[in-house]
Amino acid sequence: MDEAGYEKIARLFVDFYFKTFDENRVALGTLYRDDSMLTFEDKKVGGTAAIIDKLQNLPFQQVVHRMATLDSQPAHLGEGSILVLVTGELQVDGQEKPLSFTQSFQLKPEGDSFYVFNDIFRIVYPAS
Amino acid sequence: MDEAGYEKIARLFVDFYFKTFDENRVALGTLYRDDSMLTFEDKKVGGTAAIIDKLQNLPFQQVVHRMATLDSQPAHLGEGSILVLVTGELQVDGQEKPLSFTQSFQLKPEGDSFYVFNDIFRIVYPAS
Repeated sequence: MDEAGYEKIARLFVDFYFKTFDENRVALGTLYRDDSMLTFEDKKVGGTAAIIDKLQNLPFQQVVHRMATLDSQPAHLGEGSILVLVTGELQVDGQEKPLSFTQSFQLKPEGDSFYVFNDIFRIVYPAS
Repeated sequence: MDEAGYEKIARLFVDFYFKTFDENRVALGTLYRDDSMLTFEDKKVGGTAAIIDKLQNLPFQQVVHRMATLDSQPAHLGEGSILVLVTGELQVDGQEKPLSFTQSFQLKPEGDSFYVFNDIFRIVYPAS
C-alpha cells in the first residue's frame, strides 16, 4: 500500500473513532481536549465536557457508521496537524434507511499522539 | 446576524469560490499558492499550476453549485486559519439529476487576506 504517514494516522484514527462511537460513545472523551471544537449539525460546542455531553445526548442510542471515503492532507506541515474528510452512511436505532453523512476533523499532534482539535459533522440529504 | 469574524470570512470565501468555479474556473488560481493541496475525488495534486490544471480538466464544462450547509471553525487560534465544511448539490452539464457533494477547506491567512491551503472534495452518493 502506497500510504503516507499522515494517511496511516488518519485511517487508524477514523477506524478507532467510529468503532468507539458505535460501541462506547463516552470513551470518545479521550480524543478531545479543552480547546477542541465540535459542530454537530446546527449546534457548536467547545471543550471535552461539552462535546461528550453533546455526543451522549444525541437523539439516537444505537448507531452504526459505515465509511465510504476517507481522505487526508497535512494541515500544517511544520506542526504536523492532519485534515481528514470522511463520507459514509449512518444507520440509526434500527431505522431501515441509512443516512449519508460527512465529517471533517483536524487532528493536532500531542506528544507521540494526536487529538481532535476541529470536528464538523453534517448529514447529507439526497440531492433534489 | 450573530456571526463571528471567521464565519463571515468563510461565507464570503465560499460565495466567491463557487461563483468563480461556475463562471470562470481558471480565475480560481488566485485562491491557491504553491504549498496548496487539492484532493478531488481519488486524485491528489499540489501547487497552483497543478490544481488549476486539474480543475480546468474535469470531465464537465458547465456546472452550478448550490450550497446546502456551511460550517466553519477557527483552525489554529493563534495563527488565524479557518476550517470550512460545505455540503450541497452540483448540477453538471445540464444533467437532470444533481449530485450531492461535500468539500472541506482550510483557509490560511496571508497579509490581510486568505488563501486555500487544504481542499478536499467528494461526491456523496445516496445511502443504499
